[in-house]
Amino acid sequence: MFFASDNWAGASEPVLAAVLAAGRAAPVPAYGADDLTRRLETRFSELFEREVAVLPVATGTAANALSITALTPPWGAVVAHEESHLAIDECGAPEFFSGARLLRLPARRGKFEPAELARRLAELPRGLHHGERSVLSITSPNEYGLVWSPDEISAVAAVAKADGLAVHLDGARFANGLAALGCTPAEATWKAGVDVMSFGGTKGGCLMAEAIVAFDPALREKIAYLRKRAGQLVSKHRLITAQFEAWLDGGHWLELARHANAMAARLAAVIDRAADVRLAWAPQANEIFVFMSAERAARLQAAGAHFHDWSTAALAPEDAPRDGEKLWRLVTSFATTNAEIEAFAALL
Amino acid sequence: MFFASDNWAGASEPVLAAVLAAGRAAPVPAYGADDLTRRLETRFSELFEREVAVLPVATGTAANALSITALTPPWGAVVAHEESHLAIDECGAPEFFSGARLLRLPARRGKFEPAELARRLAELPRGLHHGERSVLSITSPNEYGLVWSPDEISAVAAVAKADGLAVHLDGARFANGLAALGCTPAEATWKAGVDVMSFGGTKGGCLMAEAIVAFDPALREKIAYLRKRAGQLVSKHRLITAQFEAWLDGGHWLELARHANAMAARLAAVIDRAADVRLAWAPQANEIFVFMSAERAARLQAAGAHFHDWSTAALAPEDAPRDGEKLWRLVTSFATTNAEIEAFAALL
Amino acid sequence: MFFASDNWAGASEPVLAAVLAAGRAAPVPAYGADDLTRRLETRFSELFEREVAVLPVATGTAANALSITALTPPWGAVVAHEESHLAIDECGAPEFFSGARLLRLPARRGKFEPAELARRLAELPRGLHHGERSVLSITSPNEYGLVWSPDEISAVAAVAKADGLAVHLDGARFANGLAALGCTPAEATWKAGVDVMSFGGTKGGCLMAEAIVAFDPALREKIAYLRKRAGQLVSKHRLITAQFEAWLDGGHWLELARHANAMAARLAAVIDRAADVRLAWAPQANEIFVFMSAERAARLQAAGAHFHDWSTAALAPEDAPRDGEKLWRLVTSFATTNAEIEAFAALL
Amino acid sequence: MFFASDNWAGASEPVLAAVLAAGRAAPVPAYGADDLTRRLETRFSELFEREVAVLPVATGTAANALSITALTPPWGAVVAHEESHLAIDECGAPEFFSGARLLRLPARRGKFEPAELARRLAELPRGLHHGERSVLSITSPNEYGLVWSPDEISAVAAVAKADGLAVHLDGARFANGLAALGCTPAEATWKAGVDVMSFGGTKGGCLMAEAIVAFDPALREKIAYLRKRAGQLVSKHRLITAQFEAWLDGGHWLELARHANAMAARLAAVIDRAADVRLAWAPQANEIFVFMSAERAARLQAAGAHFHDWSTAALAPEDAPRDGEKLWRLVTSFATTNAEIEAFAALL
Repeated sequence: MFFASDNWAGASEPVLAAVLAAGRAAPVPAYGADDLTRRLETRFSELFEREVAVLPVATGTAANALSITALTPPWGAVVAHEESHLAIDECGAPEFFSGARLLRLPARRGKFEPAELARRLAELPRGLHHGERSVLSITSPNEYGLVWSPDEISAVAAVAKADGLAVHLDGARFANGLAALGCTPAEATWKAGVDVMSFGGTKGGCLMAEAIVAFDPALREKIAYLRKRAGQLVSKHRLITAQFEAWLDGGHWLELARHANAMAARLAAVIDRAADVRLAWAPQANEIFVFMSAERAARLQAAGAHFHDWSTAALAPEDAPRDGEKLWRLVTSFATTNAEIEAFAALL
Repeated sequence: MFFASDNWAGASEPVLAAVLAAGRAAPVPAYGADDLTRRLETRFSELFEREVAVLPVATGTAANALSITALTPPWGAVVAHEESHLAIDECGAPEFFSGARLLRLPARRGKFEPAELARRLAELPRGLHHGERSVLSITSPNEYGLVWSPDEISAVAAVAKADGLAVHLDGARFANGLAALGCTPAEATWKAGVDVMSFGGTKGGCLMAEAIVAFDPALREKIAYLRKRAGQLVSKHRLITAQFEAWLDGGHWLELARHANAMAARLAAVIDRAADVRLAWAPQANEIFVFMSAERAARLQAAGAHFHDWSTAALAPEDAPRDGEKLWRLVTSFATTNAEIEAFAALL
Repeated sequence: MFFASDNWAGASEPVLAAVLAAGRAAPVPAYGADDLTRRLETRFSELFEREVAVLPVATGTAANALSITALTPPWGAVVAHEESHLAIDECGAPEFFSGARLLRLPARRGKFEPAELARRLAELPRGLHHGERSVLSITSPNEYGLVWSPDEISAVAAVAKADGLAVHLDGARFANGLAALGCTPAEATWKAGVDVMSFGGTKGGCLMAEAIVAFDPALREKIAYLRKRAGQLVSKHRLITAQFEAWLDGGHWLELARHANAMAARLAAVIDRAADVRLAWAPQANEIFVFMSAERAARLQAAGAHFHDWSTAALAPEDAPRDGEKLWRLVTSFATTNAEIEAFAALL
Repeated sequence: MFFASDNWAGASEPVLAAVLAAGRAAPVPAYGADDLTRRLETRFSELFEREVAVLPVATGTAANALSITALTPPWGAVVAHEESHLAIDECGAPEFFSGARLLRLPARRGKFEPAELARRLAELPRGLHHGERSVLSITSPNEYGLVWSPDEISAVAAVAKADGLAVHLDGARFANGLAALGCTPAEATWKAGVDVMSFGGTKGGCLMAEAIVAFDPALREKIAYLRKRAGQLVSKHRLITAQFEAWLDGGHWLELARHANAMAARLAAVIDRAADVRLAWAPQANEIFVFMSAERAARLQAAGAHFHDWSTAALAPEDAPRDGEKLWRLVTSFATTNAEIEAFAALL
């Protein structure tokens, strides 16, 4: 019962087959100067229905930090919600790479409400002493498992742009969000106002496939330099590009995402029927948040269920745990099996 | 005829099999908190005959830049030879990650002579205005294909340490050096005075396997934080550790290196017999440097031989090209075949 | 009626006389290697009743940023209250110099309550992904004009140290705080748990005299390198040291601070009697915060009173402005005259 | 006999008078938002016969490092001669602030010869792995006391610009150079191709007056942010601007420079007549380089003459010291007296 994180899983068979083929192929130029890499940029451009720049990197941390860096001057200030991965989990990498300051704003369940965001931006001081506000970063599906609809992104992107901010999307689980929304990649990103995104394949069924996608291809050269200087230009680059190709091929990525989401829905249903455990809110992709006591959780974990506790520091009062409850996160993946769900149901 | 670089090749079958197995295995904790990673540290400690800290990263650039960062204060100054990869090829990454200044010193064929190094260090200004001299970085096999013997390392390490410098070894082709020397990993590193090394598996037959190896395990936590902040902590970490394990297993790595070196020796012999092409110096591992005219090189390249030109800016007068000659580098790898050598011989 | 900021004023006559004398004196070694600078360190050590390291810099921003840098690893996280000067007004300098991340916590009127701080620190995530929590920074007198008593500092410093944090004090207006407290410099700093402080003379009557004071003199060399690399080692260093000497001489600094504080008390009394203007809270040093309408403020400003509005974003509900009110800050200085207070009283 | 450096001296009387007046004046807005600062920009624009942006800072290190930062992307590479102040004396500040790499090239007596520079630039590798070459920095008068003529600057600036480099001038002793050349400030800078300069007043008779001068005023905002983030925006800004104004007023700065240069010429004549001491080359401004034995120097120093030894590491063979000789630098200043020269002559 592996519900700790979707990056605990291995990789899908088509992805592994592509790695194997890439590893066995004849020598090709290193550092991304190969045909597979060029082909990938065309593939992404087709996927997003416009010319994009795609720069694979090794980790989501690098994708986020370098995306931000591409959009902010070193004296900038990047706005993100206070529990975002960018602001909490990346050991200062966004600040380090960009030189910019992070401004953490509250947002109920990690999603800015446009009028509230506008009010808070208006309240933030401006000018020389405060840095040049430069980027709004959002995550979808976000750190509370919730998906931003294209309309929701459009609304906050409009607020951001009125304030002079570029928009970054942390899409570590982009496939799961897309599978949930049923819209096109273009609708979920640049058509809604996203300028640069972190495009994640690792959690969705690859071994290591993350990329910076810039919807303005004029950013390509800048990001290429930033990536090299960051030690993120992998020499046998086809290791990453082959994974992306196989993952995207024939809608494989969305199939895997739909599976993970469906497993999450089943798991949520199982939990919803249980006593002493309650869903914090309805899951929208492949992450489920539940309230239960530490003792209850410990028993489940002792019986072989892997999952983590989660911070309640930024929860709105109406979302807060009741007495004796703690918040826990359960994540499903492309590799989650019905057997795992059933075993968990049996435990409950 | 792929002699452009050893990072053009794919990966060896045992390494690919290990990646496949890792990708198919049951979920394990992410970010290196898995058994395979723990086992790898034991493996490296056995290999080096002492407890070491091993921190895998995605690229050689990251391994070099973070190794340096582990050894220098941000106000430090890192000494390296003027044509070292660190000083030339990494787009400022060593300076960016460490904050330190690079001091490039000349060294015949990239190898410092101890007395000359001592003289130059004595000449460099010291004190507040000049930064705190902190690290000497050497490369073996180096940028001219030459291998430092344990005695040679010991001699310059003694000079470095007398000056207060820690010693870093860029071991992107460490296996090829070891295969050439026939000594133990310990003799080629810490026993000779190396403090931290960049341990490269990618060029030697992996798809992507680089690591920082610190011979003082007390550096582990510091490097772990630096690595995370650098976006170099790969989430499905076993992708790298599995490759290292398979590569090191049963001496596979040295076997691959011996093959690459033997192919280089054959290629050198072929070249030595040719008119209008001459070896710049005797190769010691898997890189061959030759002088020939641009026209001669262009004809070989047009016929399908891949290789690059190389800078002569730092060559000693006695190593300099003759009129009409340019310098070229040819690299063999674990994947180089006899057929490639024979085809090249036929061309010549 | 100059109540905009205490850095609008010039300098006191003894300070100016010292600058003149320093400028006329015979040549002395540059970069702080002169007798005056050495003497100053003795002077500060006497002042603080222990050996301290004193490193003058040009600005309060530099003093804060370098103080932090001296106390945190580059992968660290610095805790400060959300409206602190460090977190709001320094254009990212603390992050830039230190490499660390800022964690902004709420604190009523900018002063952490120990149990609340402990609770929040416990709530913050720990470990590799979150950076190494390293410093607590407080300001006294703070951004709301309030002074931390030695007991208050002791209490939060104990919480900080139990959490592994060093303590930094932003003392841009340290003299005003000391004058209000009536305690010794030692009691207000290291005896209460402060490790490094920004010691400000500029606002208190100098032209430009800021310093980093480290209560552990072993930090001297590190800070010296950081300062030089920051471009903060002024060549004709006696410009700063002469000011500090004259300012500290014979208690001149505290006399100037007592004057500024007394002027603030008179101004507060004047305001307290006025209709339509109310003190937000009782002032403790030389900054007064008042609520009034924008129209009222505009009339005062049009009549020649200089003062600024202030953010209410972080005010507790019980401190919040009433309908139609805004928050305004008035600052007195060593140069504030009775005539200015009387003119303002007349306006009201 | 103070010949150690021109930053050992105090300040000229008009400059001190201006500081006194600024310190006594009524309160004015802080952080450069005052009339004096605005007036200064007009003054500089008149001086340079075009609109310029002028941003005062506290040190020459800051002026150099921030000038470079204004002209390079963080992944850039800055070319300077190997013994330049930028490359040797600033504790890594240029790399720290800009993020860029320094490329140190040899240049006889610190002055690039255009064809040689072009050849070396052509030799340096280009592209992603090597950083984006961005700036050429020159110093005039330079680290060997030599002045670049407008024609010499034009010639290397043409080479630089053909290579895509912007041109920075380190003008720590700009006044001395101008006094020597007899040309206009415009001719010595932007008319010859300089884009941004470090404009130094401290060594020339101020206490602390350095500025970044950008000949493209569109750089103003960028540099303003960089300066604030660097902790270089002095709050009582008029301290610096008042000095500059008095120094520039009525040609006072050039008068002081002419005095320093004349003293240097007299000192050189005295030295030229002495046995056992010889001029390394003819001085052109206020720095004199001489060869003599360490014993000879020690006797002079013991008798009260202050001067320093100097590195010979980068001297051309024809400039090298003879057996038993070392290189020494003697610097005169606005404050050097005839009596000092005569005393030194008597010693010799």
